[in-house]
Amino acid sequence: MVDDAIDDLRDIRDRPVWQAMPDPVRAAFGTPVPHEPQPLDNICAEVKANIRPYRMGNVHPRFWMWYMGSSNLTGALADFLAAMDGSNLGAGSTGASLVDRQTTDWIREMMGFPATASGTLVNGGSMANIVGLMAARNHMAGVDLRQTGVAPMPQPLRFYASDQVHACHDKAMNLLGLGRQSLTRAPSDAAFRLDPAKLLAAIQADRARGLRPACVIATAGTTNTGSIDPLPEIADLCAQEGLWLHVDGCVGALVAIAPQNRHLVAGIDRADSLALDLHKGLHAPFDVGCALLRDRRQHRQTFAEDAEYLQKTARGIASAELLSDYNLDTSRGFRALKVWMMLKEHGVAKFGRLIDQAITQARYLDSVFAADPQIERMAPTVVDILCFRFNPGGLAEDALRALNVEIMVQMQETGIAAVSDTTIHGRHSLRVAICNHRTTLADLDALRAEVLRIGNILR
Amino acid sequence: MVDDAIDDLRDIRDRPVWQAMPDPVRAAFGTPVPHEPQPLDNICAEVKANIRPYRMGNVHPRFWMWYMGSSNLTGALADFLAAMDGSNLGAGSTGASLVDRQTTDWIREMMGFPATASGTLVNGGSMANIVGLMAARNHMAGVDLRQTGVAPMPQPLRFYASDQVHACHDKAMNLLGLGRQSLTRAPSDAAFRLDPAKLLAAIQADRARGLRPACVIATAGTTNTGSIDPLPEIADLCAQEGLWLHVDGCVGALVAIAPQNRHLVAGIDRADSLALDLHKGLHAPFDVGCALLRDRRQHRQTFAEDAEYLQKTARGIASAELLSDYNLDTSRGFRALKVWMMLKEHGVAKFGRLIDQAITQARYLDSVFAADPQIERMAPTVVDILCFRFNPGGLAEDALRALNVEIMVQMQETGIAAVSDTTIHGRHSLRVAICNHRTTLADLDALRAEVLRIGNILR
Ligand SMILES: Cc1ncc(COP(=O)(O)O)c(C=O)c1O
Ligand SMILES: Cc1ncc(COP(=O)(O)O)c(C=O)c1O
Repeated sequence: MVDDAIDDLRDIRDRPVWQAMPDPVRAAFGTPVPHEPQPLDNICAEVKANIRPYRMGNVHPRFWMWYMGSSNLTGALADFLAAMDGSNLGAGSTGASLVDRQTTDWIREMMGFPATASGTLVNGGSMANIVGLMAARNHMAGVDLRQTGVAPMPQPLRFYASDQVHACHDKAMNLLGLGRQSLTRAPSDAAFRLDPAKLLAAIQADRARGLRPACVIATAGTTNTGSIDPLPEIADLCAQEGLWLHVDGCVGALVAIAPQNRHLVAGIDRADSLALDLHKGLHAPFDVGCALLRDRRQHRQTFAEDAEYLQKTARGIASAELLSDYNLDTSRGFRALKVWMMLKEHGVAKFGRLIDQAITQARYLDSVFAADPQIERMAPTVVDILCFRFNPGGLAEDALRALNVEIMVQMQETGIAAVSDTTIHGRHSLRVAICNHRTTLADLDALRAEVLRIGNILR
Repeated sequence: MVDDAIDDLRDIRDRPVWQAMPDPVRAAFGTPVPHEPQPLDNICAEVKANIRPYRMGNVHPRFWMWYMGSSNLTGALADFLAAMDGSNLGAGSTGASLVDRQTTDWIREMMGFPATASGTLVNGGSMANIVGLMAARNHMAGVDLRQTGVAPMPQPLRFYASDQVHACHDKAMNLLGLGRQSLTRAPSDAAFRLDPAKLLAAIQADRARGLRPACVIATAGTTNTGSIDPLPEIADLCAQEGLWLHVDGCVGALVAIAPQNRHLVAGIDRADSLALDLHKGLHAPFDVGCALLRDRRQHRQTFAEDAEYLQKTARGIASAELLSDYNLDTSRGFRALKVWMMLKEHGVAKFGRLIDQAITQARYLDSVFAADPQIERMAPTVVDILCFRFNPGGLAEDALRALNVEIMVQMQETGIAAVSDTTIHGRHSLRVAICNHRTTLADLDALRAEVLRIGNILR
């Protein structure tokens, strides 16, 4: 099964990016819970026949939907080894816990955070954001929230972001008991960035209304367009106004390791908390994200509970620091191993070059699109995300939307390429996210050709 | 590397449960982030030499610390295959999403929940509890918390549990913006169970004070002693008083599939929300937990956001329901595959027999201890958790604690057996949690012999 999966990955380019599942296959997933055993061989055959051909497609060189890494063999091997090791990363004096600590130290180093900062590996970027925002809330509350909750806070807290902020922050506001109304979404500028002047005005207006401006959520790489909020200006503003700076770097933080483009995220190391994803730009298999906190003590204070059944001993298995004091988990898988093995195997320099490569590819496609009268570019291309639509002229917005959705879906259904769509500043757009280490320029030429081919048949 | 890991697991019984890491090995984990590549063979050798020998030990037949599963080969293989598949379980029309849905349906079926219920796989029991408690909070608030947060609630909410409740619920209260003071910990009875009469009195007193009793957290299998709160009585009380019933079944919910003992958790199917762990009683590799909600609509309402870049299409990759509408994640790994493959390979009946076996083993050890004048049993043995201490007589509590901690640590350091300790109703106790499918009765005899041997040397 291992050899077979490796062969399949070797030949991935010869397969469709994605294919729809036929109804008879779908029906196989409707059976009740099995009571009796069956041979593992049969189950492996079922995985091969009924699951693998219908994967998402993000391991394929022409998958550019949403924003996700392309996985890789060493990461998959590491997930196997982690499961065989069995260690629980909630606590314990183990090799695994040292790998976990070293991996977060490496990420801290890659992001330019000081040695006094701390990190925790979590299951994704949404959780990494929650970790940062919870620390921000508790630190800025002015009461001991752990004890009292948010109700007795003297002044309601306000968080700020641009209208391009990821929806996980709304979910976080719901979760944290602050509600969506606590998150002000300031209109982004023409380049889809948070405008520091508008931000300052909003902060001052809120203060005048008796609210407590607490935290700015700056995005380094927005989901829609890859735009990067002006981090140095926002960091200055937060310092001056006494606000917590949280940076959502799920898409763009790792640009900090890409030699040709790292200037784009300069200032990211000034964040009080930073969320990033290793299952995006580093291509670790799902799932693994990371939260970095500038202040280890504050980090621990946000999450630590003292449970009688988790007592530390001077020697033995329980003689290490509780890792569950740094996030919301108790038990936690050994997801550090994949990041650790991948960074050792390839070195951080190569991952940096791959990010530069993706950005170069996006700029190439942007320049090709610029020369094409039937393609409209919808936003500036900053990193490896590109927004465009097929626009042959003479069509209203609704018709353009319908036409472009059909182009997108037909490319998926034929298995040729996977792009997604979104709505930016009110207009529908197709979206290519080249978070993919297998993509070549020829793949992008094929995309362009296919968009034009289908578009001109359909219009 | 795969073969080698499998050989290692085959011979696990011949190795120490755990061993302390020598300082020179420890130093290897202090190096900075690698910039240049190195051969994968070297990295695999490092995993073998520096990580594997220092694992936690929960894959070993004499590991009974905390409460965790023993992992298994098929689960590990599934983690590899999931990583090679690459699919993101946040969304998408994929085979993986059907496996995810089928797996939560199976768990629902195993727990006796109705077809109208829904489930979501999360990274562990703590998160599964958070999912349930957040649904409870939002449903019971009396305002639209998603919008406003908890501050404008007409009456502060109160949650109730016994003093044996897991610390993740305190963390959840902190997270949810309710604060620890919103969680009343009622004193447990002599058998470490929540007392329905005391619970009712607390609810009535809170109501009289203008608070809003919202939710009872009943524990099916407490961490300390494995005690099971009286579920039918608590379910009646919740129905009568209009409270949400959340059951923390991380330790004990799966007893529902064990034919000889399922009566112990009768009534668990009456919960409004239930948290359980597949990486405990089902021995799935870390990490995977599950939250079940009685009402799918309510479940989705708690978590769904409508993001412009996650628009559903009628056909193509984005034509499936957003799975991220049922929890706090956006991206999510394909952790369903391990549970699905394991349930297919062994059948649910075998997992049920293994749980019965562990409970039988705990009762055996309890009876052996009962006959031993130097052993004091500290709590009734209900499921597969057993609390005891070495008590040769004539020692004060402090001395007993020091003696028993030393016994525990020496057994760990010599690699013979791993048990943990806790404090229950003010007294220190050693604790054996037999969530282990590799344990034999001879292993438990060895534990008893070793406790007596070390204890009598030390005293
Ligand atoms: C800017 C941004 N923040 C957060 C997230 C959420 O990350 P995850 O999907 O790992 O939870 C994403 C996901 O695409 C994102 O683009
Ligand atoms: C009763 C109980 N609830 C919740 C948890 C937390 O589960 P997890 O460690 O999977 O987060 C545990 C863990 O042991 C537990 O014993």
